Amino acid sequence: MGRKIVVIGGVACGPKAACRVKRLDPSCEVTILERGEEISYGACGLPFYLEGEIDDVKELTTTPVGVVRDVNFFKAVKGVDVQLNTEAIAIDRKAKEVRFRNVKDGSEGSISYDKLVIATGSSPVRPPIPGIDLDGIYCLKTLHDGVMLKKAMEEAKGKNAVIIGAGLIGMECLEPLLKAGFTVHVVEKLPFVLPALLDEEMAVPLMKHIQSKGVVLHVGDGVSSFEGEGRVAKVVTEKTEIEADLVLLAIGFRPNTKLAEDAGLRVGRMGIVVDAHLRTSDPDIYAGGDCVQSYNIVTGKPMYAPMGSTANKHGRIIGNNLAGWNSTFSGVCGTGVCNILGFNVARTGLTERDARGEGMEVLTSLCPAPDKPHYMKDAKLIHFKMVAEKYSGRILGIQALGPGEVLSRVDTAAALLKAGGTVDDCFETDMAYAPPYSPAIDNLIVAANVIQNKRDGLIRAYSPKEVKEKLDKGEDFIFLDVRTPKELEQMRLPYENVVHIPLGMVRKKASELPRDKEIICLCKISLRGYEAAKILESEGFDRDKIWLLDGGLVAWPYEKIVNM
Amino acid sequence: MGRKIVVIGGVACGPKAACRVKRLDPSCEVTILERGEEISYGACGLPFYLEGEIDDVKELTTTPVGVVRDVNFFKAVKGVDVQLNTEAIAIDRKAKEVRFRNVKDGSEGSISYDKLVIATGSSPVRPPIPGIDLDGIYCLKTLHDGVMLKKAMEEAKGKNAVIIGAGLIGMECLEPLLKAGFTVHVVEKLPFVLPALLDEEMAVPLMKHIQSKGVVLHVGDGVSSFEGEGRVAKVVTEKTEIEADLVLLAIGFRPNTKLAEDAGLRVGRMGIVVDAHLRTSDPDIYAGGDCVQSYNIVTGKPMYAPMGSTANKHGRIIGNNLAGWNSTFSGVCGTGVCNILGFNVARTGLTERDARGEGMEVLTSLCPAPDKPHYMKDAKLIHFKMVAEKYSGRILGIQALGPGEVLSRVDTAAALLKAGGTVDDCFETDMAYAPPYSPAIDNLIVAANVIQNKRDGLIRAYSPKEVKEKLDKGEDFIFLDVRTPKELEQMRLPYENVVHIPLGMVRKKASELPRDKEIICLCKISLRGYEAAKILESEGFDRDKIWLLDGGLVAWPYEKIVNM
Repeated sequence: MGRKIVVIGGVACGPKAACRVKRLDPSCEVTILERGEEISYGACGLPFYLEGEIDDVKELTTTPVGVVRDVNFFKAVKGVDVQLNTEAIAIDRKAKEVRFRNVKDGSEGSISYDKLVIATGSSPVRPPIPGIDLDGIYCLKTLHDGVMLKKAMEEAKGKNAVIIGAGLIGMECLEPLLKAGFTVHVVEKLPFVLPALLDEEMAVPLMKHIQSKGVVLHVGDGVSSFEGEGRVAKVVTEKTEIEADLVLLAIGFRPNTKLAEDAGLRVGRMGIVVDAHLRTSDPDIYAGGDCVQSYNIVTGKPMYAPMGSTANKHGRIIGNNLAGWNSTFSGVCGTGVCNILGFNVARTGLTERDARGEGMEVLTSLCPAPDKPHYMKDAKLIHFKMVAEKYSGRILGIQALGPGEVLSRVDTAAALLKAGGTVDDCFETDMAYAPPYSPAIDNLIVAANVIQNKRDGLIRAYSPKEVKEKLDKGEDFIFLDVRTPKELEQMRLPYENVVHIPLGMVRKKASELPRDKEIICLCKISLRGYEAAKILESEGFDRDKIWLLDGGLVAWPYEKIVNM
Repeated sequence: MGRKIVVIGGVACGPKAACRVKRLDPSCEVTILERGEEISYGACGLPFYLEGEIDDVKELTTTPVGVVRDVNFFKAVKGVDVQLNTEAIAIDRKAKEVRFRNVKDGSEGSISYDKLVIATGSSPVRPPIPGIDLDGIYCLKTLHDGVMLKKAMEEAKGKNAVIIGAGLIGMECLEPLLKAGFTVHVVEKLPFVLPALLDEEMAVPLMKHIQSKGVVLHVGDGVSSFEGEGRVAKVVTEKTEIEADLVLLAIGFRPNTKLAEDAGLRVGRMGIVVDAHLRTSDPDIYAGGDCVQSYNIVTGKPMYAPMGSTANKHGRIIGNNLAGWNSTFSGVCGTGVCNILGFNVARTGLTERDARGEGMEVLTSLCPAPDKPHYMKDAKLIHFKMVAEKYSGRILGIQALGPGEVLSRVDTAAALLKAGGTVDDCFETDMAYAPPYSPAIDNLIVAANVIQNKRDGLIRAYSPKEVKEKLDKGEDFIFLDVRTPKELEQMRLPYENVVHIPLGMVRKKASELPRDKEIICLCKISLRGYEAAKILESEGFDRDKIWLLDGGLVAWPYEKIVNM
């Protein structure tokens, strides 16, 4: 008989590892223990089931041709044994045995292994807030969670829903809840949405968009308690009280590490510790997916990155190593994308906050622009930010969001991050260009060019936040707005120190501007602002006094007068 | 006074170089000589002007806020002098002078330079076919061409249009011509469309799509003559005759090198020869854009790559060097994308044909699949092919096309090519995953995995073409189709040697299959075919006799019985 391989956990990494090793070495006996009723399902599809995009939750458990990936399928097609409703409760590393319990009838048993895979996944964070166990408070992780929440949405239809946590899951559930007629509140402890993914200035346009759809945001506010008689009726926060017919707890996920910990395996704050081979501190035990600590290829440090894509990759690598190969996985860079009420939101790598938190010196660019040439009728805005190392120019991360296309930009940046690419490498990347898809100089490349220009001393720019601080301090400077009179009518800054000279007149009228004050040039997106700054420099203005407002008016998150 | 810089050519690279150097060194005197009436326009937008997506051709000459980039704009904003209708006719390198002629009044003059930039662009290829000078035969390169063609389309509305050449421009013009009610014929010398971009097997689904829209394809056929009295009335090809009310000549572009050649600069078959600094053989003369020879970063050899995106990059690099910097540009990899009647078509790097033509040994993968999880209602098919070096696993190129999303995949691959990435690097690229955008294992990564599997000896696969040759030779083998009975009803191979066993039954029924014959496993896309092959191997079948049909039925370009 072949070696016995036991896999704990049957959602993504587990089945992948099981099937892979069985393909590589058919002599193995492979058994998956799964505590739930289902195996190998697409949990990431749950928000779309809630929304009605997917009619039957079972579709998340089928192959593309509609075959259900059930126990029989795994046996017949994959040659892998699956035991459902079977929770692993202990690992005896000496005896090389896993003790398990049938969650239906409580019966226990054990199974021996030559090699073991821990793919126990993650669980939603449930902090010990008073009232958290009331009925009507849901999480979204398993198919069962999805079915329960959907049922609750149908029952409480059109009332008040409160989402706790403005992370990916919470944001993805806005659409199904709004579609179902709910008034939706979001409570987020940090002062902006998607705080793990975005910098605050990038989150601002997203928050405005969400609010424009009727969502009530309570950012910078935390939940104090849930109140109600048996069933939740109210969410009490630090700042207010919100009527609640339904609560979605979406604060994040925590790796399921208890089994590994109890077995004496090395476990860190961010999950089970594994090496590049996805091997735990016990050489006969591998672990992968949401239960392990990942490695961030940008910082060179551990990170927690529970993603279905990564779990699948882990499964493949583990399968290889179980078969006796020597496969490694170098890590991830925290790429994420989601659709939030029609806004595409994506990021990869580090935010500016992340990078500065690591003590890095950075240059950033803030480049809102259409996602294709302006003359194409379906060109749509994307807000764009790039973060790079100040000296090396190595790209550290990008954030992109808006109604326009972001996927190609974030994926390209992820490939650059993988290669340790710099802004110069980005400039040289031969991205596809055709008017229905992208501008001649892609938004990603524009962002790299702006950082090159800053590095090379061509632009001195203030971030919107820095300028706001100057305003708040009452500093004496001039905003030079170089847009057309027509643009000015539509939108403008409400400050007294704004001087308006259309770009085409700046060279002529430069002499009217004071030479002893700081001049902060701007336009819609600060491309013309840059031209204006260069004109003033060429007219002999003191270079140290000529600045640019990063991202222009579009990226300015503070007061604006808008006439539509 | 500052140095005098003269730029010949005012479309993309020229103005970019001019404006860049002026920003870096305002003391320069910069003059652009442009033989046409317009400067700095988006020629790539012309097909969309023909289509009506762009109302006025002038939109291609404006900035995003509607300011026309004319002579006054360049003077006022950029500080650059522009002389329109001014054709450079000779370069006197000794005197450092450019001789020019006013194309309106024939007057001549000259301008001296310290540094010169040649950005003379390209011209449509017009082979000496009898009748090529008849009226009614158009090219599409300049704004003027666009206006003339649009006028002709309006006059000849709803008649017969013949496109000569199935390259990018020809394919992009299908939509405007069909929309205008034309019956459209395409004559292409090579046996398939987009021959410079795609392998034949990838072009087949595109050809079927184009034909389904009513386009009449004449591939593998060349034009012998154009006939008509003054105006073209008929296109005579090697194989047929086509009534023609309007002809679009779209055979390709040739670099405009005469001026450089006459001046004794080094010129190759693919354009003016430049170094990494985009400097010609004369250190005081730079050249960029469509008139120069590019460098292919994949082959390490010269290539011709006339793209608006590259021209802009060239302009930036030239501008830097004119200002005294030391900037280099390493090259391109032939990335292209276009929308052909609703099909997204993209490629980067080398096709299999390109690579084999270079004498490389390659592995390929053919992976048609939905562009997002199958349970998403708007998931759409993309045909996908990857080519990699057999030994190193270095990715050489990808091709992707279909109704689904291709931009993110081709751009990511372009970044991998830039970094010299392998299929293993591709696997480790942290591409964005969320059901509205992409499957958990992105199509690009699946393609890399298949090549890994081939390299690692897990799959032995035949390409559709290899299998067709076996059929044609009457070889004795079995097709093992492992799809469901329902799928079989919808589509199947019309051959007698097809055995049908649904995947779930293969393990059980393996004994019914002969062990002395080659068995070629397949399903819709050959993912289940791969499973079946592994099952047969695990059941003791001779590994050398078990094969996979690359890409499955979806990629099979030959006979199929389809019941819709």
